[in-house]
Amino acid sequence: MEYINLDKTKGYKALLDAKKSNVKELLTPERVKTHDIQLGGGLRYNWAAMPLSDETVSLLQALADEVDVISKYKELLSGAVMNTGEKRLVLHHLTRGNVLGKKIVADGEDKDEFYKGELERIKAFSEAVRNGKITGSTGKAFTTVCQIGIGGSDLGPRALYLALKGWADGNSVKQLKGEFISNVDPDDAAAVIERLDFETTLFILVSKSGTTQETLTNRDLVLETLKKSPIKGFDPSKHMVAVTSKTSPLASDSSMLEVFFMDDYIGGRYSSTSGVGGVVLSLAYGFDTFKALLDGAHEEDVLATEKDITKNGALMDALAGFYLRNIAGYPATAILPYSQALSRFPAHLQQLDMESNGKHVNRNGEKISYPTGPVIFGEPGTNGQHSFYQLLHQGTDIIPLQFIGFKKCQYGKDIITAGSYSQTKLNANLSAQIAAFARGKDDENPNKEFDGNRPSSLIYGDELTPKALGALLAHYENKVMFQGFIWNLNSFDQEGVQLGKVLAKKVLAGCEGDELLKAYADLLI
Amino acid sequence: MEYINLDKTKGYKALLDAKKSNVKELLTPERVKTHDIQLGGGLRYNWAAMPLSDETVSLLQALADEVDVISKYKELLSGAVMNTGEKRLVLHHLTRGNVLGKKIVADGEDKDEFYKGELERIKAFSEAVRNGKITGSTGKAFTTVCQIGIGGSDLGPRALYLALKGWADGNSVKQLKGEFISNVDPDDAAAVIERLDFETTLFILVSKSGTTQETLTNRDLVLETLKKSPIKGFDPSKHMVAVTSKTSPLASDSSMLEVFFMDDYIGGRYSSTSGVGGVVLSLAYGFDTFKALLDGAHEEDVLATEKDITKNGALMDALAGFYLRNIAGYPATAILPYSQALSRFPAHLQQLDMESNGKHVNRNGEKISYPTGPVIFGEPGTNGQHSFYQLLHQGTDIIPLQFIGFKKCQYGKDIITAGSYSQTKLNANLSAQIAAFARGKDDENPNKEFDGNRPSSLIYGDELTPKALGALLAHYENKVMFQGFIWNLNSFDQEGVQLGKVLAKKVLAGCEGDELLKAYADLLI
Repeated sequence: MEYINLDKTKGYKALLDAKKSNVKELLTPERVKTHDIQLGGGLRYNWAAMPLSDETVSLLQALADEVDVISKYKELLSGAVMNTGEKRLVLHHLTRGNVLGKKIVADGEDKDEFYKGELERIKAFSEAVRNGKITGSTGKAFTTVCQIGIGGSDLGPRALYLALKGWADGNSVKQLKGEFISNVDPDDAAAVIERLDFETTLFILVSKSGTTQETLTNRDLVLETLKKSPIKGFDPSKHMVAVTSKTSPLASDSSMLEVFFMDDYIGGRYSSTSGVGGVVLSLAYGFDTFKALLDGAHEEDVLATEKDITKNGALMDALAGFYLRNIAGYPATAILPYSQALSRFPAHLQQLDMESNGKHVNRNGEKISYPTGPVIFGEPGTNGQHSFYQLLHQGTDIIPLQFIGFKKCQYGKDIITAGSYSQTKLNANLSAQIAAFARGKDDENPNKEFDGNRPSSLIYGDELTPKALGALLAHYENKVMFQGFIWNLNSFDQEGVQLGKVLAKKVLAGCEGDELLKAYADLLI
Repeated sequence: MEYINLDKTKGYKALLDAKKSNVKELLTPERVKTHDIQLGGGLRYNWAAMPLSDETVSLLQALADEVDVISKYKELLSGAVMNTGEKRLVLHHLTRGNVLGKKIVADGEDKDEFYKGELERIKAFSEAVRNGKITGSTGKAFTTVCQIGIGGSDLGPRALYLALKGWADGNSVKQLKGEFISNVDPDDAAAVIERLDFETTLFILVSKSGTTQETLTNRDLVLETLKKSPIKGFDPSKHMVAVTSKTSPLASDSSMLEVFFMDDYIGGRYSSTSGVGGVVLSLAYGFDTFKALLDGAHEEDVLATEKDITKNGALMDALAGFYLRNIAGYPATAILPYSQALSRFPAHLQQLDMESNGKHVNRNGEKISYPTGPVIFGEPGTNGQHSFYQLLHQGTDIIPLQFIGFKKCQYGKDIITAGSYSQTKLNANLSAQIAAFARGKDDENPNKEFDGNRPSSLIYGDELTPKALGALLAHYENKVMFQGFIWNLNSFDQEGVQLGKVLAKKVLAGCEGDELLKAYADLLI
C-alpha cells in the first residue's frame, strides 16, 4: 500500500485548481432530498448544505480513490501496524465486530476471541451486580458506579453515559447512577465523593498503562477516604474494579474486586467500545444496552467500507471536512447537537479529532506543510443559539457547522405550548438555522444583513437510542480515521502530550535548575 | 469622542509594519516576574509568554491612546449610549458600584438607586428564604433553587454557581442546591424535574424581555408538572419568582411569588452581576457571598480605568488578544482553567466574547474589512491535556492560550500521594504547560519535536473565592469591551441571532411556502 503526503497527490492539486462553489447558490430543496446518505443505527447524513458541486464531488472521489482510503481502512481492519509511531495494530473496530471476518493474531493471541472474552466477562459481572449477586462489602446492592479515569477513559464514557440517561428513563430501564472523577484538581474528587454513599458505590479505575498520574492520584484520594469510613464491616477492596492492559501494574492488583482487560491496540480516544466504556455502561444501563451500542457501531463500521463517497457517510463527511480545511481554508468546526443528551458529546469529539489529527508530521514522522486537524468546539442547540451563534452568523470568519438532531425526545415528557411541542420547537430551530446559515439574508441595514454561505451538514434520526448512539460514535471515529489517511497522518499516537508530562515531573522534583519553570512554579505553588 | 475603524488608525499600520517578536526568544525567568499586573480580588495577570517586545508594547500603548480606549470606557460609565444599534446605555458596571461616582439618569430614574434598590430586595428576599421566613406552599423550607433561563440568563449564573460550590462546601456555608433548565429540548427539563422535590424547590424564571421562547416553554412545562402534583395544599404560585424588566409581560404576572427587576441597559451576557445572577447566587450561597462577588468585580472595574497598559490587566489582555488576532493572524483562543470549579466558565466566556465581538459591522452599522472576535473554546486542565492539547502543541495552526490557576483548592480535601498534594500536581502541570508551549523542544525525531512559540497568558491567585471570581468575571467583561473599542464595534447588541428566530417561527407556522425550510423540516419534524 502506498502512503503519500497530500501535497504530492494529483487530486489535491486538481481540487485547488477547480472552480469553488457557493452554498447559497447550490442549496435547493431538491438537493436536501438527494444529498442524503444512510448511516448505521437508522441515522442519516445530509450534506446538502456543503459547498460541493457535482464537479467537486467527482474530484473528491478521485482523491479518495487515489489515496485509496478504503483499502487503507481494510488494511487497518486486517491487523496492519497502522499506529506507525508506536508500532501497534489499531483494533478498536474489533471490539464491536469483525468487519472483514479475518482472524487477527497479536502477541500470540486471537484478538477477536480476546475482546469477545472480555465482553462476556463484562456481561457476567454487570449482570451479577445488577441482580444483586455481587454486592458491596456490607451486603447492600450497588446503586452507583463511579469511574475514575481521564482523557479517553473519561470523555467518551461520560458523553455516552449522559447520552443514554434520558433514553433509560424514558424506557424504564433499571439504572445504576453514574459518576465520574477525572481531574487531578482535588476539588473534582471532593465534589463527587461528597455525594456518594460508599456502601452502595462501585468504583471503576480505568487506565490502560496503569500509570496515569491523575488517575492513580484520584484512586489514592478515594481509597484514603474509603479507608476512613466508620461503617462496620466496610471493606474498600470489595468496592473497586479496574480496566487496564495485561501488562499494567493494575493487572495483578489484589486490592481490586475484578480486573477487565483492554490492550495497546486500542487508543484511549477510541476505547469507548472496549471495557473502558463497556464496564460503566453495562453496569449503569445493563449489558443489552451496551451491546446495542456496539451493534450500531458495527453497522456503521461495515457501511464505512463503501468506496462510493456518495454512499459512505463517514467518507463523505471526512472529504467535506478536508475540503473545508484545506481548499476553503477554514480553521475551526463547530459541533452542534440539538439534543441535550449529547451535551458532552462535543467534548469527546474534541479529543477524538484534535488529538488524532492535530499533527505536524506524517505517518513516517516527517514534517508536512499543509494544514491538518481543525479546532473542534460545540455546545447543544438551542443553547448555542443564545451564545456564540452571533459570531457564526455575522463574524468575519466562516466556521463550518455539524448539526445533529432527532425527531423524538428521549424522556417522552413533552407538552404543547403556544401550539407546538418543545421537541417541534427544537427541530424548527435546527431546520431554520441550517437555512439561515446557508442562504443568509439581504438587508439595507448591514447590521441586519447575513452573508450566508456558512456550510453545514446534518446527522439525523428518529431517536437517540443506544444503537443510534453507537453508530454516531463510530461515524466520527471513522471520519477522523479517513481524514488521517487523506492527510497521511498516524491518527493513533499522541506524542504532543509528552513534553508537558516531562516538565511537570521536573517541577514536582524542584525544577532541577530550570529557571523558567521555577519562575512559573513560584507564581503557583 | 471620535470613533474610527481600526484600519484607519495610525497605530494599526505601525503594528503591521513593525518587527514581529518570538515568544521563545522573549521569554525569560526575569520577564515572568516583571510582566505581571495586579487585578481585582487579589488576582494577577501574567503576560510574560505573550509575543510582545518592549517596542510592540509601546506601539500597543500608542494604539490604545489613539483609540482613546479608557476615555470610551469612562464615557460608557458616564451613561453614554454605547449600545448604538439598540440605542441604549450600557450599565452593567453599575450593578456592582459606581466607578466614576456620576449620577446616571435614564427613563426618569436614577439608575444607581434602581440597581441598589433591587439589590436590597434580593438581600431581604434571599435572607427570608434562607432563614425559613418564606417557605414553600406546604410550609417546608426551600432547599433547592432552580433557574429557568437561556443564554446570558443561564451560562453566566450557572458558571458562577458551579465556581462557588466547592468554596461554600470548604467554608461550611449554608447552601441551597442550584439547578438550571435552559434548552428547549424537553429532555433538559425532564432530567432536572426528575430529581426535584417540588415542595422544597423555588423556581427562578429569568427573561429580560419576558418573551424568550425557550424560557416560557420551559416555564409552562414546569408549571404543568407542578399543577399535577398530588401533594395536599401544594400551590405552584408560591414556588416561582421572576427576574425581568419592568416593561415585560412577566413584570405584572400575579402567579409569581416575587418579581425582581433589571433593565434594557444590561445585556444578557453582562447580566450575571444583576438580579439574573444575584437572585440564584444569593439564595444558594447567601447574600454576603454575592456581595463579595460584586465587590471583586467593582475592584476590577476601578483598576480598568488605568491608561498605562502595563498596569491595566484587562487592557493589556485586550491588546494582546487584538495583536494575536489582527497582527499575528490567529483565529481562535483557548481558555484553560486549572480549576475544576471553573468547568463551565469557558462556556460563559464563549458567549461573552463571541456574541459581543463576532461582528462584521462597526458601531455605526457599516461593514468592516478586518477580523474581529476569535473563536473561544476551552475545558479545565488537566483534563484538556489528555484531550485536545496534542493539537495545541503540535498542530499546524497556532492557538493562543489563556491559563487560569489558584494556589489553593476550594474543598481543602487534599492528600499527599507520590510525594506531593494533588493541588501541587495540578499547578506543576500548569507551570509546565506554559513553559512547554512557549519554548518547545528540539528533537531529531520530528514526531517528538515541539516548535514552541505558542503564546499564553496566566491569570492566577491564592484561591477562587467569591471576590476573586467577581474580579475574574469583570476582567473578561472589560477585556471584551476594550477589544470592541479597538475594533470599533458595538459589543452590546446581537443582531446575528435574529434571522434564525424568524425562520424558526416560519417553520412552526408551516414554512409559508418556503420550500427549502420545508425540505429541512421534513427531515426532522
